[in-house]
Amino acid sequence: MAVSTHPLRALRWDGRRLWILDQTLLPGREAWLELTGAADTAAAIRRLAVRGAPLIGIVAAYGVAMEVAHQPGLGALERATGELRDARPTAVNLAWAVDRVHAAGLGAGPATLAAAVRAEAQAIHAEEDAASAAIAAAGADLLAGARRLMTICNTGALAAGGDGSALAIALELHRRSGVEVLACETRPLLQGARLTVWELARHGVPHELLVDGAAAGLLRRGAADAVVVGCDRVAANGDVANKVGTYGLALAARPAGVPFVVAGPTSSIDVALPDGDGIEIEERDGGEVRGFGEAMVTLPGTPVRNPAFDVTPAGLITALVTERGVAAPPSAESLRGLLT
Amino acid sequence: MAVSTHPLRALRWDGRRLWILDQTLLPGREAWLELTGAADTAAAIRRLAVRGAPLIGIVAAYGVAMEVAHQPGLGALERATGELRDARPTAVNLAWAVDRVHAAGLGAGPATLAAAVRAEAQAIHAEEDAASAAIAAAGADLLAGARRLMTICNTGALAAGGDGSALAIALELHRRSGVEVLACETRPLLQGARLTVWELARHGVPHELLVDGAAAGLLRRGAADAVVVGCDRVAANGDVANKVGTYGLALAARPAGVPFVVAGPTSSIDVALPDGDGIEIEERDGGEVRGFGEAMVTLPGTPVRNPAFDVTPAGLITALVTERGVAAPPSAESLRGLLT
Repeated sequence: MAVSTHPLRALRWDGRRLWILDQTLLPGREAWLELTGAADTAAAIRRLAVRGAPLIGIVAAYGVAMEVAHQPGLGALERATGELRDARPTAVNLAWAVDRVHAAGLGAGPATLAAAVRAEAQAIHAEEDAASAAIAAAGADLLAGARRLMTICNTGALAAGGDGSALAIALELHRRSGVEVLACETRPLLQGARLTVWELARHGVPHELLVDGAAAGLLRRGAADAVVVGCDRVAANGDVANKVGTYGLALAARPAGVPFVVAGPTSSIDVALPDGDGIEIEERDGGEVRGFGEAMVTLPGTPVRNPAFDVTPAGLITALVTERGVAAPPSAESLRGLLT
Repeated sequence: MAVSTHPLRALRWDGRRLWILDQTLLPGREAWLELTGAADTAAAIRRLAVRGAPLIGIVAAYGVAMEVAHQPGLGALERATGELRDARPTAVNLAWAVDRVHAAGLGAGPATLAAAVRAEAQAIHAEEDAASAAIAAAGADLLAGARRLMTICNTGALAAGGDGSALAIALELHRRSGVEVLACETRPLLQGARLTVWELARHGVPHELLVDGAAAGLLRRGAADAVVVGCDRVAANGDVANKVGTYGLALAARPAGVPFVVAGPTSSIDVALPDGDGIEIEERDGGEVRGFGEAMVTLPGTPVRNPAFDVTPAGLITALVTERGVAAPPSAESLRGLLT
């Protein structure tokens, strides 16, 4: 694959219409899907055609904007807000973005409601783009000198408006001084194998793929200088919900003596949530675990536990990198410092 | 599937000929494969048609026995011993069993060499059968009252001569008082999803399947009372090499406050090895990670790290359960106590 110099983006917005890169088809096929309103946008979020905490916030905001463009009025605004807010429970960016466009719509008069919602959605998109760049720079400063980063899931352009969070840091380090990325495959849906490897290959960043179970042992053997991950929700005390498998990486980073860094926009911080125990963990369908694409890998009907996320306690986190700066370590105090 | 009352066995030996259940085809198909000598036995071990540390020891011993039955003499004995001893590097049972039949052959006269090797292989098989039963009883005593066990890989009848090691303990607890098993799928080759689930279903043991990355978070949320795993090699200080992902379970068991128990026959203990840092970790082909059965899950040619095992330091292990008793915790002293 040729190394692309164009920025990689997972969504296109032309001021009225939205297309998303259907992430369920990657890396085999690059297909763009047009979304038209709240229902198809919510469905695309639920089936993970679009995913990544910052990105689903942006896309959901556009979903509301498109809905009220078709049917201006408070009824459509309320319906679209409700439908999109509930599309996935764990990431807080989704509710945050939907609530922002909802408030913008409520604050406008009937004649300007649709325009106000669209403008707010575009503002969110622009802010999240800028946040990616700021996170990349701050994270690369923090990890200057690191030669090998381990990560999980996908936290790049396919997860955000700009270059992403954790993967944006890796990309910035690659530009500055060179870096290799160890990508955990991220079962069950293989966002690492399918999406992160695809992004890294597009950017020409050296990388190696590993199964999630290999991460702890490889860290113990010195395979990485740091672990860098994204976040779906950060509680007020610094506990972090992120893709299932993240907590295990944090546990392994400590005895390996390498920093465990979480990256994400401040829109991921939920100040209303005291700690991680209150985070609702989405349980997804067992079919994701029983099968693998077309292949069935266990007996049909096998009972499954399939949490999509886990919680990493703040005490295991070296630093939280946001567009407003670094909380090292994240705590009630350091997070308040970032947000005020 | 009907619950079977027959003991499940992964090999059949009729005194002259050996058949193995081809584990690469489970759970979709139960196909028995006849092995005839050293070369096909070594190939079956390398491609994991037969796997599990105790089981590959037994099968390798029979492989030598069949080879010298065809071609009695020291030449065939040496050749078969060399070929089978190197079939896989990490488990010590393989070298231990092959060295035992080799010594038995060397100690016999030319006329009785083949018979002596066969008798020693059969003795190893019988001893490993008995070891499974003793491990099951000792482990069930140790974990009396546990309702939910988490495990990884396959450590049942498909991994041993008898009912296995860690899974034999679960089965014994099921018989005594009932237990539920949380089975990690065990990427890349999915021995948990393919083999452990199949065994549990055959025995009617309630179970749930999970991706390996979900284990730590589920333990943190109290999903299991204990973690029980097998072992491929135990160093003299109690460090344990086992299926990749095991070390991560040990790290997660500690803060969850649940015991981390390792089970295996004393043939897995390598007294010549001071600690786990000296254990050779088998690196397997990257295709196991890039693909999933027929499905390709990442870009073709993606570089891969694929260690088949990892090392868990003795300090994270609550107890090592063997057929000679329990070392709790395993240490140079407690292991010496078991072996003398």
